Amino acid sequence: MAAPIDFYFDFSSPYGYLAAQEVDALGARQGREVVWRPFLLGAVFKTTKQEPLLNVPIKGDYARRDMARCARLIGVPFTLPEPFPFSAVAACRAVYWLADRDAAQAKRLAQALYHVAFGEGRDIAPAETVAEIASEQGQHRDEVLAALGDPAVKDRLKREVEAAQDAGVFGSPFLLVDGEPFWGHDRLSHAEKWLETGGW
Amino acid sequence: MAAPIDFYFDFSSPYGYLAAQEVDALGARQGREVVWRPFLLGAVFKTTKQEPLLNVPIKGDYARRDMARCARLIGVPFTLPEPFPFSAVAACRAVYWLADRDAAQAKRLAQALYHVAFGEGRDIAPAETVAEIASEQGQHRDEVLAALGDPAVKDRLKREVEAAQDAGVFGSPFLLVDGEPFWGHDRLSHAEKWLETGGW
Repeated sequence: MAAPIDFYFDFSSPYGYLAAQEVDALGARQGREVVWRPFLLGAVFKTTKQEPLLNVPIKGDYARRDMARCARLIGVPFTLPEPFPFSAVAACRAVYWLADRDAAQAKRLAQALYHVAFGEGRDIAPAETVAEIASEQGQHRDEVLAALGDPAVKDRLKREVEAAQDAGVFGSPFLLVDGEPFWGHDRLSHAEKWLETGGW
Repeated sequence: MAAPIDFYFDFSSPYGYLAAQEVDALGARQGREVVWRPFLLGAVFKTTKQEPLLNVPIKGDYARRDMARCARLIGVPFTLPEPFPFSAVAACRAVYWLADRDAAQAKRLAQALYHVAFGEGRDIAPAETVAEIASEQGQHRDEVLAALGDPAVKDRLKREVEAAQDAGVFGSPFLLVDGEPFWGHDRLSHAEKWLETGGW
């Protein structure tokens, strides 16, 4: 069985959202499972001393235009939520809590969270919103809310963020394909070619 | 006659080098002239408060790997020169000096400068090296050296850098296609699709 593709992303990353629309189809074409690994880019930015893309003068304005243009190109809805960037802590915790019970449902929850955030442009930072979205996916709202405050779930996310950093992840989206790193929505095509050719 | 594509680049930009290998073919396929506009990214970084990519922790290491991988993908030689980044002032001045006499020769000189810098990995910062490369392209070495110190040529470059900033250019490579901005080697395919479709 070929190794899975690790798909690292921050729920607050527009290009992560775009990659999330395409990465499973890529995996299916190449016969690889895709493991969705949400993490928190803010923790990594402290190491790389970067700041959120849209805060950078001039480049930020271009990025807004480019994100929307890329979304139109691949035919997915795109609305930048306000406020932006937002905290993805609750979203991440919910996904990892669910992943320990049902990995497929966790992936569907992640897809739903991304859709609400960037497809509809709604703020998914509040725990209540995350619980509401999870309940639409068949979870019990109160159980989700309890999980979001559970120290074990908090610790699980902390370890995942550390593991992402240890794996060299510094941006979103980020793929690890047989140990080879690919950063950015625009590197999905390279990652796929890497799988097709065995690397070059 | 359709408007030309403006191709902005810094000679010290590895992704600019990669784009330079492909942009004229893109223009030819789309029936557009490509105007090569070298500029100095350092001046722009002061505005955007960015720093050279390879200086960023973790991200810089990835970038080295990605640049070499992209070069292999498109089948062009790639060696990162030392020191890096380097000053592209002399290279820019030589190209603009020559552009005022013969635009086609100026483009060939720019291609030769990029090839020596990233194809061969040699330091093209010194005026003597730029003059040597220009002399291999049929220019008079002493005439080039004189031009590099000419206040009018210095001023020409200064105005070009200001014009790039005024046009919203903040990175390298950067294309302006019928007023639409495309930043990065990975956006050449978007720029071409823009030309093919008239935008989306």
